[in-house]
This record gives sequence, structure tokens and C-alpha cells, in this order.
Amino acid sequence: MTGSLITKKTIATALRELLKKESFEKVTVRDIMRHCHMRRQTFYNYFKDKYELVSWIYYEEAIENIQDYMNYENTAMIIERIFTYLYENQNFYIKVLEFTSQNSLSDYLLEQTKLLIRHWIDELDDNGDLSLTNDFADFLSDFYSYAIVGVAIKWLNDSCPEKPKIIAKRIVRLLDQAFQSAQDLSQHQRRG
Amino acid sequence: MTGSLITKKTIATALRELLKKESFEKVTVRDIMRHCHMRRQTFYNYFKDKYELVSWIYYEEAIENIQDYMNYENTAMIIERIFTYLYENQNFYIKVLEFTSQNSLSDYLLEQTKLLIRHWIDELDDNGDLSLTNDFADFLSDFYSYAIVGVAIKWLNDSCPEKPKIIAKRIVRLLDQAFQSAQDLSQHQRRG
Repeated sequence: MTGSLITKKTIATALRELLKKESFEKVTVRDIMRHCHMRRQTFYNYFKDKYELVSWIYYEEAIENIQDYMNYENTAMIIERIFTYLYENQNFYIKVLEFTSQNSLSDYLLEQTKLLIRHWIDELDDNGDLSLTNDFADFLSDFYSYAIVGVAIKWLNDSCPEKPKIIAKRIVRLLDQAFQSAQDLSQHQRRG
Repeated sequence: MTGSLITKKTIATALRELLKKESFEKVTVRDIMRHCHMRRQTFYNYFKDKYELVSWIYYEEAIENIQDYMNYENTAMIIERIFTYLYENQNFYIKVLEFTSQNSLSDYLLEQTKLLIRHWIDELDDNGDLSLTNDFADFLSDFYSYAIVGVAIKWLNDSCPEKPKIIAKRIVRLLDQAFQSAQDLSQHQRRG
């Protein structure tokens, strides 16, 4: 890890620790930097404000939890990984959702989920199982990403009433069925 | 129609006409009331501000375009009706989306779409075709509503590149397949 990455992670950890007791609204940059024993100015070398820090946490953790696994794990496992990650970090996400616009978390999750679903579709297509136009593959990635992210944010806002495995399994079953149907349809069309 | 409903509709029409030329941000309550030759104070008898007027338009038209048809038309036709309605009123919705939080339009569409999908699921279930727990039926309505509303708002923001019939057909096909799979699964479980 580079020095600047270590500094950013230290600042991020300080915010997460403060959010165990405080609301996001009340935590100041001064509090964060006092908590990690750094000069207040150092914060501004990396982030414009605490909202930018939150966005950075989204992206950094997305890379660690999703993107790094994209070529090694199947989509079902990554979807379970995302819900488990949100579950384990629900205190942070619920506190942040309260005081930032829901859009930034939705946007980040959407971007990642679209990549993931598109990756799944392209893999099925490479096996020759689907014959989708690019346009329809985009539509499918959009459609299911909105569904997954909508369900994820609602679940967080409801304080995660179900275990992450349950939610992830339900979603994966629906996607499996959907892509299975698309596959049957395409094979049927080829045979006919 | 009651007198107050006529007044509200007149005010709503004035806003829609002004939005043909102006941005939502620039239109004032004074402009709206001048346009329909009413006293400015009359506006405040019905609405707090122009944002509340927009919410009223959503709800009022939802009733006229969706709820009134819920028991007479099948879901596929209502979904096409929603997209056609958004398409015909895209000038209004695009202008409003630009300057109000996307959330109010999403929330209204979500509420209506959830009712609609739940209604569809319950009808299939009444025919004995599905055997879903209440909890899973809720999950399905949420899941597909987020998908439909996400796609609808993106489509509006992209200035409706596809004709509403195309989008509606794609969505209905996906839902049909999904509920067909659920049905097959449930029949399979009963037989086994």
C-alpha cells in the first residue's frame, strides 16, 4: 500500500469508529482528524469534505469486495459477498444513508451491480447459451441491477431484517431462472 | 368533479403549459396563477409550494391512469399504459426531474408499481398457480417494482430513446417468464 492509501484508510477508519457513537451529521472533520491523531489540514490534502470521504469508502471497498473477485468467483458468490458486506457494515451504511442523499450509495451500488450482471450475461453468451443483442443485454443488466440495488437499500433502511444469505439466495434464484428462460428461448429459436 | 378539484386541475394545467417554454426552476407561483387568471392566494389554499403541486399531479394522474384500471385491465396493458403516459408527458417529467429530487417521482411510481405487481401475483395465486408465502410475494413485488421504476426513470432521463410499447413489452416478457418459472416450480413441488 502506498503512503497516501494508508493515510486515507486511517482517516476512513476514524470516521467509521466515530459513527459507532455519533450521527453522521454531528461528526466534523476536526473530530475525525483528532481521533486519528493527524493534523486537520491533512484531511483536505485527500478529501474535499466528509461526503467525499464517504464516496471514497464506497469505491475503495467496492474494489476490495467486488471487483477484485469478479474473475475468480461466480456471480452468486459475489452477490452473497455484497449483502454480507453491507450486513457487517450496516451501522456505517444506515448512519450514512440517514444524512447523505441516498443517491450516492445507490449510484455506487448500481455501477458495480451493472458490471457484475453484464459480466454474468457475457459469460453465458460466450458459452453460446444466449443470443442477445447488445442492446437487450444492456437492458437486462439495467433491469436486474435496479431490482437488486432497490432491494439492498430497502433492506438496509429496514435494519437488515433477513440474514444476508437469505436475501442473496432469493436474488440469485430469480436471476438464475431469468437467464435460464432466456437460454431456453434462444435454443428454441435456433432449433425452430 | 368538485369545484376544488377543477381549481387544482386548472392550476396543474397552467404549470404544464408554462413548462413547455420555461424550466421548472424559473416558474414561480405568481407565473402559474397569472397564467390561469386566478388570484395568487388561491394557490396557497390548495398547495404549500410548486413541489407539492407536482406531487399532487403525480398522485392525481396515477389514479386516472393506473388505479382506475387495476380491476378491468390486465397488468401487461397497465404497464404499457404507464410507459405511454410517461412518453406522452415526457416534456413535463424531464423538466420536473431536472429540478426536483428524483425521489418524489421514484417514490410515487414505486408505490403504484408495487400495488400493480402485488395485484398480479395475488391473481395468479388465487388461480392456485403459485404457492407463495406472503413474505416472498412482498419480496417479488419489491424486486420487480425497483427494476421497472429504475428502467422508467433512466428511460425518461435519456429522453425516451425507445417507443413505450417496446419497453413495456420487454418488461412484461421478463415478468411473464419470472412468474411462469415460479408457477412451474410450485407445480413441480406439489407433484413431487
